[in-house]
Amino acid sequence: MREEFSNWIKEIQNRICLEAELADGKEKFFNDKWIRAEGGGGITRVIQNGAVFEKGGVNTSEVYGKITPQLREQLQTEGEDFFACGISLVFHPYSPMVPTVHANFRYFEMYNKNGNVIDCWFGGGSDLTPYYLFEEDAKYFHQTFKNSCNKFGGDLYPKLKAQCDNYFVNYHRNEERRGIGGIFYDYLKPSETFTANELFEFAKSNGEAFIKAYFPIVKKRKKLSFTEEQQHWQLIRRGRYVEFNLIHDRGTLFGLKSNGRTESILISLPMHVCFEYDYRPEKNSEEEKLQRVLMNPINWI
Amino acid sequence: MREEFSNWIKEIQNRICLEAELADGKEKFFNDKWIRAEGGGGITRVIQNGAVFEKGGVNTSEVYGKITPQLREQLQTEGEDFFACGISLVFHPYSPMVPTVHANFRYFEMYNKNGNVIDCWFGGGSDLTPYYLFEEDAKYFHQTFKNSCNKFGGDLYPKLKAQCDNYFVNYHRNEERRGIGGIFYDYLKPSETFTANELFEFAKSNGEAFIKAYFPIVKKRKKLSFTEEQQHWQLIRRGRYVEFNLIHDRGTLFGLKSNGRTESILISLPMHVCFEYDYRPEKNSEEEKLQRVLMNPINWI
Repeated sequence: MREEFSNWIKEIQNRICLEAELADGKEKFFNDKWIRAEGGGGITRVIQNGAVFEKGGVNTSEVYGKITPQLREQLQTEGEDFFACGISLVFHPYSPMVPTVHANFRYFEMYNKNGNVIDCWFGGGSDLTPYYLFEEDAKYFHQTFKNSCNKFGGDLYPKLKAQCDNYFVNYHRNEERRGIGGIFYDYLKPSETFTANELFEFAKSNGEAFIKAYFPIVKKRKKLSFTEEQQHWQLIRRGRYVEFNLIHDRGTLFGLKSNGRTESILISLPMHVCFEYDYRPEKNSEEEKLQRVLMNPINWI
Repeated sequence: MREEFSNWIKEIQNRICLEAELADGKEKFFNDKWIRAEGGGGITRVIQNGAVFEKGGVNTSEVYGKITPQLREQLQTEGEDFFACGISLVFHPYSPMVPTVHANFRYFEMYNKNGNVIDCWFGGGSDLTPYYLFEEDAKYFHQTFKNSCNKFGGDLYPKLKAQCDNYFVNYHRNEERRGIGGIFYDYLKPSETFTANELFEFAKSNGEAFIKAYFPIVKKRKKLSFTEEQQHWQLIRRGRYVEFNLIHDRGTLFGLKSNGRTESILISLPMHVCFEYDYRPEKNSEEEKLQRVLMNPINWI
């Protein structure tokens, strides 16, 4: 599984980058390969100052080695060695009419001192962060992931949609969400319900769903015009994105505190951001309409 | 002491705001008074889009009540009730030639169930975050705080200077400092060395030192011209300021996670910020010179 998952993330990394370059029409990704002293490494692919994407990163990494005391505490495990690999991506478009998106698919294995796998799990998901709410886009994004989930069981989408709404939360802002959600799952272990292979198929299906869910929205909205005021609102909302990622996101904090590659982790932050004191959108404006939805997640389907 | 300290922070808040308005020459502060449901409240004073200061906040707060389980754990105390008050300020100038500054002075009391004070301490400090290094300014800033410290003992400045260098650290960036330091102290309790009154005098002396240390630098540098590239470097450095405050700063995280007033806490974040992938200043440039100093703090005096 470890090899198969590792091959798949690199394959889908390439496909996502190609799709993004196509949608951007101007800029190409550049590659940073890095090596982790303790074992493993990664490929960080970055697009900056494109025609559509101000900043985007599509990263794969594969790390392994001894379980550190910090990791042991977090995972409450008795394992000796671990292996983790995954793809993590974010796109921050220039235009406030085009939503920001994030997706992540990962696989984890744990070994005892004889090198036998004693535990393994899958995690992943994708969530959309619009600056202006096009209900049609929200429904399309959610429907695409729902279709992907439904192939594996009708109870999956509602559960993973709720988990997403409960994860990307700025608790310090009255539980305002980072965006309009999507799906989120973690610690999916092989069981009577799903074999490891089925969970791998589930990851692959969601990876395909990501491509199908996001890029058509980009193509549809990228030519819309926008005002300076709308761009200002985007910069304010990006501030909330930064707050979530640096204050609450478990993956970001774990990476930064466990000596991960800082530049690859913080590629998730948008290029330009504005933090203004006590900014409040006008009553009954489009901006306030979005904010209300972020306070009270909607069942889009 | 509680009343005296509380009066002093409001008095020095007014004086600092007046000095800042004078240095700015255009914009005035506005006031937000807020009340804390569990006891106490504060006065948040904000300046935005001035001629010199893009964003600044000078806040006082006074909070009291029952010790929460969270606070009990952090402070490892057996007290029943607490009282805390302080002034916290930050100035983010437009010009990359004018440094950002932060200062904070606070007082804490703890009571047993009979309402008697069983513990109390003082904390505070101030640190400077330049975007371009004027050694003369760095020396002047440090010398001003050294003079203030020396009135209370010759060993204080070196100790509090080192504590400052060790506190404002972006551990996830190879221990790069937020700025060029200043002084920092916490949990200063009345003892054989200093009475509570002497510690209060020390806070007052450092408050005066702040006014004397910062505003002359602003006046000296605010008329310097700068290029777009220099402003870009400032936006990048501001990103590191945001990273420190949201990832590492104990005060910020404690405030946000204990239901503090979010807008007053996050006023510390600069208005406009840029997060660019793997930004590196040119070799032997002024920007790289600053970065070297941030990696290896200097004894300015």
